[in-house]
Amino acid sequence: MIQIFTTGGTIDKVYFDANSEFEVGHSLLPELLSESNIHEGYRLRELMRKDSLEMNDEDRHRILEAARECDCDRIVITHGTDTMADTAAVLAGLKDKTIVLTGAMQPARMRRTDAVFNVGFAWAAVQLLPAGVYIAMNGEVFEAGAVRKNLQAQRFERT
Amino acid sequence: MIQIFTTGGTIDKVYFDANSEFEVGHSLLPELLSESNIHEGYRLRELMRKDSLEMNDEDRHRILEAARECDCDRIVITHGTDTMADTAAVLAGLKDKTIVLTGAMQPARMRRTDAVFNVGFAWAAVQLLPAGVYIAMNGEVFEAGAVRKNLQAQRFERT
Amino acid sequence: MIQIFTTGGTIDKVYFDANSEFEVGHSLLPELLSESNIHEGYRLRELMRKDSLEMNDEDRHRILEAARECDCDRIVITHGTDTMADTAAVLAGLKDKTIVLTGAMQPARMRRTDAVFNVGFAWAAVQLLPAGVYIAMNGEVFEAGAVRKNLQAQRFERT
Amino acid sequence: MIQIFTTGGTIDKVYFDANSEFEVGHSLLPELLSESNIHEGYRLRELMRKDSLEMNDEDRHRILEAARECDCDRIVITHGTDTMADTAAVLAGLKDKTIVLTGAMQPARMRRTDAVFNVGFAWAAVQLLPAGVYIAMNGEVFEAGAVRKNLQAQRFERT
Repeated sequence: MIQIFTTGGTIDKVYFDANSEFEVGHSLLPELLSESNIHEGYRLRELMRKDSLEMNDEDRHRILEAARECDCDRIVITHGTDTMADTAAVLAGLKDKTIVLTGAMQPARMRRTDAVFNVGFAWAAVQLLPAGVYIAMNGEVFEAGAVRKNLQAQRFERT
Repeated sequence: MIQIFTTGGTIDKVYFDANSEFEVGHSLLPELLSESNIHEGYRLRELMRKDSLEMNDEDRHRILEAARECDCDRIVITHGTDTMADTAAVLAGLKDKTIVLTGAMQPARMRRTDAVFNVGFAWAAVQLLPAGVYIAMNGEVFEAGAVRKNLQAQRFERT
Repeated sequence: MIQIFTTGGTIDKVYFDANSEFEVGHSLLPELLSESNIHEGYRLRELMRKDSLEMNDEDRHRILEAARECDCDRIVITHGTDTMADTAAVLAGLKDKTIVLTGAMQPARMRRTDAVFNVGFAWAAVQLLPAGVYIAMNGEVFEAGAVRKNLQAQRFERT
Repeated sequence: MIQIFTTGGTIDKVYFDANSEFEVGHSLLPELLSESNIHEGYRLRELMRKDSLEMNDEDRHRILEAARECDCDRIVITHGTDTMADTAAVLAGLKDKTIVLTGAMQPARMRRTDAVFNVGFAWAAVQLLPAGVYIAMNGEVFEAGAVRKNLQAQRFERT
């Protein structure tokens, strides 16, 4: 069993015509997983719908508590990319579970997006990695505490 | 020969991760037309890249001049929806050309969008309608001066 | 009110893994129209699910009868492209309705397809054209009896 | 460095209007990887373009030789699903490389497909698994020699 926690971020952004901007909508993950022939073996819970730049210490604490209390030992967290590394660092204290954070540079609802690949990538990573906290982005696995987003290159890289 | 003028609006919005928001990008129309087996018989010129809420009188005057000076008598204008009716009213003085404004409620770059249908719809409308200025949205043709966007219903309707 | 009759063809093809080939599935039109903010004002009836190369005289007679008996005077027919011109010729005897045949070179279920544009194009054509039978493909309107599919160029053209 | 070998199968099927059927086209993998922000770190070589039902012993021997001679120790092979388990069994003699076979039930060129998720999944699997031969499908990793495609359920499962 894999537990998914969604927290918002680009991956789940929806375009709202009413105010001509993107906001975080409901998660597309169940639809993406279903298209990929994955209909069971996971649970999904929405923790919040935030741009990761708007997340504060309290939000990260909520994510930490949700991960700690969860009775699954394999957890995927979808998260905005801008502060994904910060949340990973907060979670790094959890030593007995495999926790993989992922997200996207382009919303899952776009024609061209990295979201579906990233979810597939994270799905394997969470099953195959030993206990620990990781970021799975741009086709690579990074350990919490040793990763940053390179804003210019629009990629994650080791620190 | 059909002249396309692009002015921006939701139809051409791109998601920029750098600032976590959508901005107007280059027009997808040549790509959409090519996918629809239309490779010639039109010219495209970008007039501006604006959200239609940001358009001012000067912008509308530029669009009017471009349409007036154009030597094609069939013109499609892609435009943001919020003030599309205002621009149509400004253009309504042009009596000798068939001018069709269209746009989209969801960006053409989304998986689910009204953009492609609307462009196809406008493509027929501009060929089949007599001289005049029209809005082609949600599968209907509206005459300039007698149409408004209903923000609640997210549709265009006759006034 | 617009009546849609679906008859099959590439536009509605689905990939069936079981036999590793494409077959005609249920029509995507209601979904495509809904994405384009068209939720009412039309009726849809499936007449058959055939590759147009497999259509025979009896099939064309069924289409003719359905169009004749229909109480709408604006009819869109989705049809395979290979014999679309033949069916249009059979329908050409109907003088009091506007009938527009359309279809696609690539299935509507593909990422890149002409289907959505063609449906939008046909949607305007059926509203704006006088009574008669027409083919609406590759961004052009053709009159029944004066059109053929150019297999090499993958386009419809006047005869 | 990851070596990709493509062999055909549903994942790369293209719809050819000329004969109204799907055939194997060029691989979409470079495009899918690029959309997922993966621009380097891999090489791709097309070995053949076959439906896996048409593969014979000679074809499987070619795949085996390509994998054996490859100087990368991490290899992804895209392959039709019907005989993927057979090819995996042939490759199982290679003990010193991590080889992951993947494919799709729906072509990568469809709007709704498992292809992108599967490629992302295989991309993590090939980096994280120890030397061996594996099938990565429907969000699970299977060892060569202990897996079959369940035609009814349209899923891979352990034998």
